[in-house]
Amino acid sequence: MSQRRIRLGLIGGGFNSFIGVVHRVAAYMFEDYEIVGGAFDANYDECKRFAEHLELDVNRAYPDIDALIAAEKALPADQRIEAVSVLTPNFLHYPMAKKLIEAGFHVICEKPITITAAEAIELEQLVEKHKVVFALTHTYTGYPMARQMKQMIADGAIGKIQKVDAQYYQGWINPIIHDKAQRSTVWRLDPKKSGQSSCFGDIGVHAFNMIEYTTGIEVESVLADLDTMYDDNPLDVDGTALIRLKNGVKGLVRASQIATGEENNIQIAVYGDKGGLKWVQEDPTYLTYFQEGKPVQILKPGHPYNSEFAAESTKIAPGHPEGLFDAMGNIYKGAGLAIRKKPFKNGAFPTVRDGVRGMKFIEGVLESHKKGQVWVNIL
Amino acid sequence: MSQRRIRLGLIGGGFNSFIGVVHRVAAYMFEDYEIVGGAFDANYDECKRFAEHLELDVNRAYPDIDALIAAEKALPADQRIEAVSVLTPNFLHYPMAKKLIEAGFHVICEKPITITAAEAIELEQLVEKHKVVFALTHTYTGYPMARQMKQMIADGAIGKIQKVDAQYYQGWINPIIHDKAQRSTVWRLDPKKSGQSSCFGDIGVHAFNMIEYTTGIEVESVLADLDTMYDDNPLDVDGTALIRLKNGVKGLVRASQIATGEENNIQIAVYGDKGGLKWVQEDPTYLTYFQEGKPVQILKPGHPYNSEFAAESTKIAPGHPEGLFDAMGNIYKGAGLAIRKKPFKNGAFPTVRDGVRGMKFIEGVLESHKKGQVWVNIL
Amino acid sequence: MSQRRIRLGLIGGGFNSFIGVVHRVAAYMFEDYEIVGGAFDANYDECKRFAEHLELDVNRAYPDIDALIAAEKALPADQRIEAVSVLTPNFLHYPMAKKLIEAGFHVICEKPITITAAEAIELEQLVEKHKVVFALTHTYTGYPMARQMKQMIADGAIGKIQKVDAQYYQGWINPIIHDKAQRSTVWRLDPKKSGQSSCFGDIGVHAFNMIEYTTGIEVESVLADLDTMYDDNPLDVDGTALIRLKNGVKGLVRASQIATGEENNIQIAVYGDKGGLKWVQEDPTYLTYFQEGKPVQILKPGHPYNSEFAAESTKIAPGHPEGLFDAMGNIYKGAGLAIRKKPFKNGAFPTVRDGVRGMKFIEGVLESHKKGQVWVNIL
Amino acid sequence: MSQRRIRLGLIGGGFNSFIGVVHRVAAYMFEDYEIVGGAFDANYDECKRFAEHLELDVNRAYPDIDALIAAEKALPADQRIEAVSVLTPNFLHYPMAKKLIEAGFHVICEKPITITAAEAIELEQLVEKHKVVFALTHTYTGYPMARQMKQMIADGAIGKIQKVDAQYYQGWINPIIHDKAQRSTVWRLDPKKSGQSSCFGDIGVHAFNMIEYTTGIEVESVLADLDTMYDDNPLDVDGTALIRLKNGVKGLVRASQIATGEENNIQIAVYGDKGGLKWVQEDPTYLTYFQEGKPVQILKPGHPYNSEFAAESTKIAPGHPEGLFDAMGNIYKGAGLAIRKKPFKNGAFPTVRDGVRGMKFIEGVLESHKKGQVWVNIL
Repeated sequence: MSQRRIRLGLIGGGFNSFIGVVHRVAAYMFEDYEIVGGAFDANYDECKRFAEHLELDVNRAYPDIDALIAAEKALPADQRIEAVSVLTPNFLHYPMAKKLIEAGFHVICEKPITITAAEAIELEQLVEKHKVVFALTHTYTGYPMARQMKQMIADGAIGKIQKVDAQYYQGWINPIIHDKAQRSTVWRLDPKKSGQSSCFGDIGVHAFNMIEYTTGIEVESVLADLDTMYDDNPLDVDGTALIRLKNGVKGLVRASQIATGEENNIQIAVYGDKGGLKWVQEDPTYLTYFQEGKPVQILKPGHPYNSEFAAESTKIAPGHPEGLFDAMGNIYKGAGLAIRKKPFKNGAFPTVRDGVRGMKFIEGVLESHKKGQVWVNIL
Repeated sequence: MSQRRIRLGLIGGGFNSFIGVVHRVAAYMFEDYEIVGGAFDANYDECKRFAEHLELDVNRAYPDIDALIAAEKALPADQRIEAVSVLTPNFLHYPMAKKLIEAGFHVICEKPITITAAEAIELEQLVEKHKVVFALTHTYTGYPMARQMKQMIADGAIGKIQKVDAQYYQGWINPIIHDKAQRSTVWRLDPKKSGQSSCFGDIGVHAFNMIEYTTGIEVESVLADLDTMYDDNPLDVDGTALIRLKNGVKGLVRASQIATGEENNIQIAVYGDKGGLKWVQEDPTYLTYFQEGKPVQILKPGHPYNSEFAAESTKIAPGHPEGLFDAMGNIYKGAGLAIRKKPFKNGAFPTVRDGVRGMKFIEGVLESHKKGQVWVNIL
Repeated sequence: MSQRRIRLGLIGGGFNSFIGVVHRVAAYMFEDYEIVGGAFDANYDECKRFAEHLELDVNRAYPDIDALIAAEKALPADQRIEAVSVLTPNFLHYPMAKKLIEAGFHVICEKPITITAAEAIELEQLVEKHKVVFALTHTYTGYPMARQMKQMIADGAIGKIQKVDAQYYQGWINPIIHDKAQRSTVWRLDPKKSGQSSCFGDIGVHAFNMIEYTTGIEVESVLADLDTMYDDNPLDVDGTALIRLKNGVKGLVRASQIATGEENNIQIAVYGDKGGLKWVQEDPTYLTYFQEGKPVQILKPGHPYNSEFAAESTKIAPGHPEGLFDAMGNIYKGAGLAIRKKPFKNGAFPTVRDGVRGMKFIEGVLESHKKGQVWVNIL
Repeated sequence: MSQRRIRLGLIGGGFNSFIGVVHRVAAYMFEDYEIVGGAFDANYDECKRFAEHLELDVNRAYPDIDALIAAEKALPADQRIEAVSVLTPNFLHYPMAKKLIEAGFHVICEKPITITAAEAIELEQLVEKHKVVFALTHTYTGYPMARQMKQMIADGAIGKIQKVDAQYYQGWINPIIHDKAQRSTVWRLDPKKSGQSSCFGDIGVHAFNMIEYTTGIEVESVLADLDTMYDDNPLDVDGTALIRLKNGVKGLVRASQIATGEENNIQIAVYGDKGGLKWVQEDPTYLTYFQEGKPVQILKPGHPYNSEFAAESTKIAPGHPEGLFDAMGNIYKGAGLAIRKKPFKNGAFPTVRDGVRGMKFIEGVLESHKKGQVWVNIL
């Protein structure tokens, strides 16, 4: 049983999981986690079969989270699971994270953190109280050049921020939304499974997160116009949120699931009085840097001109692209440093605070829309 | 004196004009205009010197528009100036265009058409009454692939429109806006010279125009949040307008003059239930076409797969880029067809109607902002 | 009759000409030429009809070049055509240019300058003897960022050159070459009409020219492997030429007319010991600049950071693309300065010397290939 | 001890290895390998320390390959290392691979496979004789869109191939080559450590491999011009090889380590009589597809329109980029299928045959250059 590596458990992430592979590859990436057990599937037989697939001790394949907590707590401290990744359907994130935190486990949680902001705030308080590490997998913050952008803004490369614009456009829901039978059955549009929001809950919040992540400034208020496309569809599939940052800067968050043909087109642009920075997730190895009166600069990972933060988030020499799995790996790496009480950089992994901010944003957007596009404070 | 070619006069456009060269090159481009005179400069000596430079009959260099109208009206119909390009400062567009229309001249007018929507409506009525051609130089509509986009949408290539997003980001005002002395003197921020709006009046209206141009659908209402950056600056330099089209489709117009480092980054994206189309002015020879479940397509000018409208707007074989001057040439060409009463395609040149729409949009945006982000109908 | 403007005649360029429009737009662009006559078409009726179309004095529509020369020479010096653009089929460039030079006219000549290097050398000597201006329309040298590249290399921006790579890939001959009937009739593959070479004569020579233009260094020797695709096709449609510059630097010229799907994909990359520069014709407003250990820079036209040479070749502010017609306009502008004996920058227009170099390159490539890929000196 | 997973050993790849992390991440990626031991470092203490770092049984940290072979062969078949990754300096690939093959281990070998073609041929014969799997890590063949390109060509998407052009440009040696002290000490330019060739041995061979990989056609002969830059430098740092495929098609391989500013700019373009395909490693998620008379298509991973081969090489939905580590993971996955005697697609991993072809190419290039640019058969 590993002492150096963090002993990791998984809730969800079994054979039928799409996201499971991302977390496992990320956990393996820097050899600082060892998967030792989990409740991989609501079906216990499938759960055990998955444990066998991973060649784990099948005794540590648990029927549910309660069994996991009980059994692992009973193990000696040096064998027990230390951290748990929560990869379940959205509505289960909160109850499971809560139990895990209260039981003293570190948590790596898929997004959205909860269904309501109140729940997220509760988790934040629990994390504080139980002194565990809580990482929320806003994966895009793990890309080296997103981190370079954050660092450059912090270092004053663009001066005082004066405008922000973040976008997340997808088109995947287009073939579904126009078919009544499909749109009434897909879980993404079912409030019971997906929560209060589809488009902003799932992707708008990523664009929002990139604004707070790269600028380090909180969004104070929002005004949003959403679109559900059909009256029988309860959840937003498109919308725009005007925003105002704490320092008075204006900007916007644009999100869509009906931008037909778009894949995961998340982009962030931040302009200051000295320059501007733009980053596009689908071309993650390029960071565009504008400076007054100078040629545009294109920064790429692996060069000495990058910050230490970006350098630590890059495994290889310039010109060999790293992708989404590598970004997730960087987040696991950052959380691992925190778990092992080693020094880590600000932004090394998104925290429960990011979760609270995201949920407040989503609720603010929904409230603003419901009230007919009024400003809602989300601090 | 040309009979075939349209005899063209210019108001403004002399030695100190930046925009003059664009209009003259455009007028020459298809050999269907001949510049024969004008009031090129408020300084009459400079005006005559410019006429000499162009080797025109100096008798047709006029001290002002009234002299031009009087003298030209006195000439035989087959020698008289037929059309006049108005290239003066913004606040003079309306009075000069009005005089010209009332005197029976065709008008090619720089943007913005007027300072107020009421004036634009008046011009529209005058154009109707006097049966002249009025072309407004929304130059970007002259690019072949912008026209191809319009045609494809009309032909159903993306199905029913469900989302529109247009942007015009510049950064040029950034070094000016932060300096009190500069911002209080630049004409762009002087309401007397520039009109009611800087950012939306100058560039936001272009983005708006591209939406109505490519979709063929009018914007019904707007809700806008603008930014002046400083309290002593009366005009917007940045902002976002949420919009709703007549058919209920939602979208937005984003504009900025403080997006530091951006040049003329105007982009338009339109998504429908069958596909999507995107066009970016700084890379005007590429039109991106998304279709559900198919590889992305990149269309380029000069190919037989393009529409007749795009083909007519392209002078050369594929792979040899045409640019802004060529786009303006296409607008002159379209206006020339109308002047000569030859058949022309819908969209061959922007009309006084585009001017009315643009002014209503600008006033709607300003009203919405002033009232604290409320919806304003602009039909 | 213009005194300031250069009185221009055209040989060819009538209704059926593809290239005519490019030359006319270029001639109009800076208002320093006036088209006054020509032998626009081998068919005299068509020639006169074209003169009427341009509203010229039909007396100056000539049945052929001899008539043009005779009649114009008989006119007073201040009315006579000063410069003639030669836009005829390739095999007529040499005899017509020769007559014009000998008669004292300035010549603007389409490419290829001649059919043989010997003819080009003869023209060079005649130009010297008769002290006329001779401009060869290697149009790509007229783009602002190609000129910026030349200037930066001259100014040492990339240090000592150590590698050059130029490409011109097209695909247009693909549907023709595989059809025996078509390939035996197309004039491009007919040695009598097209000369000794198709691919290198038509486009390879452009790539070669960009090397000598941007580096300012002559190519000393070549080794080439060509492809005719079919035994019954006498002319190359594809090939690669290894080259060695005078200073020992190695490089290559790649050209193809069977790169199916390519349009006018001409690119030039030059690497030195301090940096590198790359330019791509189909995206002409971007110049990529590499420097050891620094972020990549993207230069664009219209900025103060560009050289005076690039600035003079740009008509408008940054972010409004200029294209091929504008590039040709710049060449006419440069030639106009020379004709008017005004100062002009090195590289302002390609000269008869470029023509000689190009023909030597083409003949060297053909000889190298014929002899089975041996090195051939082309100095 | 894993039964399902392949028990993997490593030669080299310890703390000081750059490439080690790529192999380990790749081995973990699909959970079909388990690293159980190795000779990670020539220094035995470091080797053991690395085993401890990976939390392996330190008894399986071996002082050298002979010890590894002896000890592992002594273990029961179900515990013994099954496959070994060879990550040592270049000159050790051959002797170590040879010993491993002869001892019955499967081998995953870094590039170059050997120092001479004769050695590669010997390995090929040994692989045949000992019936082991031999995977050569030509990593770029693991990218989904490189595989899609191979499959589309095989499926006739571009018709009959008529032109190939592959490039690998780097600039990293530029700051070294011009400094006599540095160039005489860097191992890449030391024939004893690096082999017969620097530029073509290290990267030109990748470009060559992409040609044979994507087209499925062997290169028959080569003619090359190389550049060593300095007389005291024995190895090429730049060069071009003209090539002829077995079917008569012509093309070229361009490679440079002095293309200052370039990173890992490997590109492959293949043109046929029906279309063309281009792929660029630094933007690996885009495959450009030209078809006669149709808009350009851009294919991206994760879409149903891709081949099964590309689909199997993609872990995630469209729009989330995968990179170099994922490409290496795909090669490990393919080799794993072969080791476990499961069906795998042609091209699922590069084999010893690719190694033989590569070494013949390198030797052919060197011979051609030495003899003054003559054609050399490499079949």
